[in-house]
Amino acid sequence: MNDAITAAWQRAADHQRRFDARFAAYFDSLTDPAAGRLDVPGRGTFPARALELVRELSLRGGKRLRVALLHEASALVTDGSVPGLDEAAISIELLQTHGLIHDDIIDDAPTRRGGPSTYYAYRRDFPDRPDTALALAVLAGDLAAFLAGRVLLTSALPPDRVLAMAAVHADVSASTVAGQLIDLERDFHPAPDTELLHEVTEYKSTRYSVLAPMLLGLLAAGVDPTPYDAELRRYATAVGIANQIHDDWLDLFGDPASLGKPAGSDIRSGRRSYAVRALLSAADDAERRLLEGALANPDCDDDTLERIRRTARTHGIDRVLAADADRQARRAAAQAAAWRGRWRPDAVAFFEHLPTWSVRRDR
Amino acid sequence: MNDAITAAWQRAADHQRRFDARFAAYFDSLTDPAAGRLDVPGRGTFPARALELVRELSLRGGKRLRVALLHEASALVTDGSVPGLDEAAISIELLQTHGLIHDDIIDDAPTRRGGPSTYYAYRRDFPDRPDTALALAVLAGDLAAFLAGRVLLTSALPPDRVLAMAAVHADVSASTVAGQLIDLERDFHPAPDTELLHEVTEYKSTRYSVLAPMLLGLLAAGVDPTPYDAELRRYATAVGIANQIHDDWLDLFGDPASLGKPAGSDIRSGRRSYAVRALLSAADDAERRLLEGALANPDCDDDTLERIRRTARTHGIDRVLAADADRQARRAAAQAAAWRGRWRPDAVAFFEHLPTWSVRRDR
Repeated sequence: MNDAITAAWQRAADHQRRFDARFAAYFDSLTDPAAGRLDVPGRGTFPARALELVRELSLRGGKRLRVALLHEASALVTDGSVPGLDEAAISIELLQTHGLIHDDIIDDAPTRRGGPSTYYAYRRDFPDRPDTALALAVLAGDLAAFLAGRVLLTSALPPDRVLAMAAVHADVSASTVAGQLIDLERDFHPAPDTELLHEVTEYKSTRYSVLAPMLLGLLAAGVDPTPYDAELRRYATAVGIANQIHDDWLDLFGDPASLGKPAGSDIRSGRRSYAVRALLSAADDAERRLLEGALANPDCDDDTLERIRRTARTHGIDRVLAADADRQARRAAAQAAAWRGRWRPDAVAFFEHLPTWSVRRDR
Repeated sequence: MNDAITAAWQRAADHQRRFDARFAAYFDSLTDPAAGRLDVPGRGTFPARALELVRELSLRGGKRLRVALLHEASALVTDGSVPGLDEAAISIELLQTHGLIHDDIIDDAPTRRGGPSTYYAYRRDFPDRPDTALALAVLAGDLAAFLAGRVLLTSALPPDRVLAMAAVHADVSASTVAGQLIDLERDFHPAPDTELLHEVTEYKSTRYSVLAPMLLGLLAAGVDPTPYDAELRRYATAVGIANQIHDDWLDLFGDPASLGKPAGSDIRSGRRSYAVRALLSAADDAERRLLEGALANPDCDDDTLERIRRTARTHGIDRVLAADADRQARRAAAQAAAWRGRWRPDAVAFFEHLPTWSVRRDR
């Protein structure tokens, strides 16, 4: 990596470290009578257990790219301390926790972020009652969703600013559910086209993971993002696609140990990912039969997956996908480069280098 | 019914009629480019189907007591038209829709409000794919939850007022999930005490169905409800318990045709309701064995239920429960009577008579 990319990585790591401490303090505050205590029943252990699992999954949380984007969007216009950024970051990360908890019910996924999924943590709590585990996991996900909306409303910003931020958050939350719905629908297509995959990515991930953090960061800093809407969306869309292609690449070609989940989970769960789509269109009949036998087959064995991986490499799918991700990352970087004259140079540099860094991680 | 109760019933019916038209218009606006269109993907049919099911269940909606409470709380302090009441009412009813959709997954309930539950509508869409139906129902419930938060933020009130209302809504949404969690936990108790049932009622229903509408109505009308917090809570708690006891009474002793769901569903789903608790503590050994064999047994036949119902009547459970509900209703009415000097008489009369009316419905 060159120095500029290392600097972007370093800034993201700083945001992550600071945020993780702040996020833990937020969860402490939910049970602290002096702070923003959550009004829960005094009797019973189920509410406390749900909060504990929401907290555990939330704090076991990856690279926090969303948090970095939020702070850097604010840094585009000011180097001062901006109230409301922490609450916005917590809000977006709780929305992510909500999505993961419900996704893992939908995918019947035992692991997440290197630990048990919330659903399977409850399956372990209630080994003889899978229905109870399911019910509790649905409710734990709901709790995370409502906490996400709640935390933003308590930030110490002027009411009109908080309201604008809360409206972005609410819009993006609803759009993301629509994205999860077409994500499910996509897997009913034998071979979805790239445009559909791009639209799934846009709604399922980009809206809340890239666009919303940038809008929230600018709003918190007192800037109306409306005049920049088109260019922010262009940047977000390209970063979102680059990231998703890279995620799909990692799922087939990456190292399971550094991912915190088994390789090939997209294939086993029947997900028509960018990698699966590319292989389906390149494969001959025998190879397609091999892949289709493995798709949506949770018992597909490691040998079969290894054969699919080799077939994909033979067709050059690994190189094609990496090149596609790189191209989208360059597109995003070019958009950010156009901000050099308008916005603060250190934050612009972050947005220029983040796309390349994010498609090279774990590669 | 006496004239005053009829008048309260008439006011509630007027609110319901007006609201139902407004609620339908809200759903129209979600797909109207000119209004508050929801940003969903252009491709795919799953998002539109989810919106359709959320709409159907929402518009198939009961007596709208929450809506009446909201408007009447505003009418306590003004007889003028108050902006924001419609958005607040839609918000609370969407929260209810969210809760019903997820509840019906948790309870595996085929019917709701005289039609299919959302989960079973999806089961019918995908007869061979119960997992897909489950996933779609989880997401449809999530969509309703996020729409609930979103609609409040678009009301044409001063930002600080909207913010105060959104904060109440967010607090109550999170507390209600905690209530659903202890509602599940309650059924792990062989015979829960009345205090636990009261606490389940308070968090699972009262917070969002009685207290929040009153707080939101006052806030929309420009009144800070803080000085009245204790008395509003006393009223809400008593009305909530009265309503829940009456619901539990109806589930065992009511007419299935007017309820829109099969009688005895609490017993079949294993719910330790006020009626079940009362019968468990009054029953002799043979009667208790009969009841325990039916609890959480979805295949329990109608004859067994009829025997349980007769046993309950023999022990006078129907009269005891009705008396308990009446006593709580009188307690609420007495609290409302104390508002006569302070607040507008027609709305105070509504709050005085609503409790009695609501525990006599369908009796």
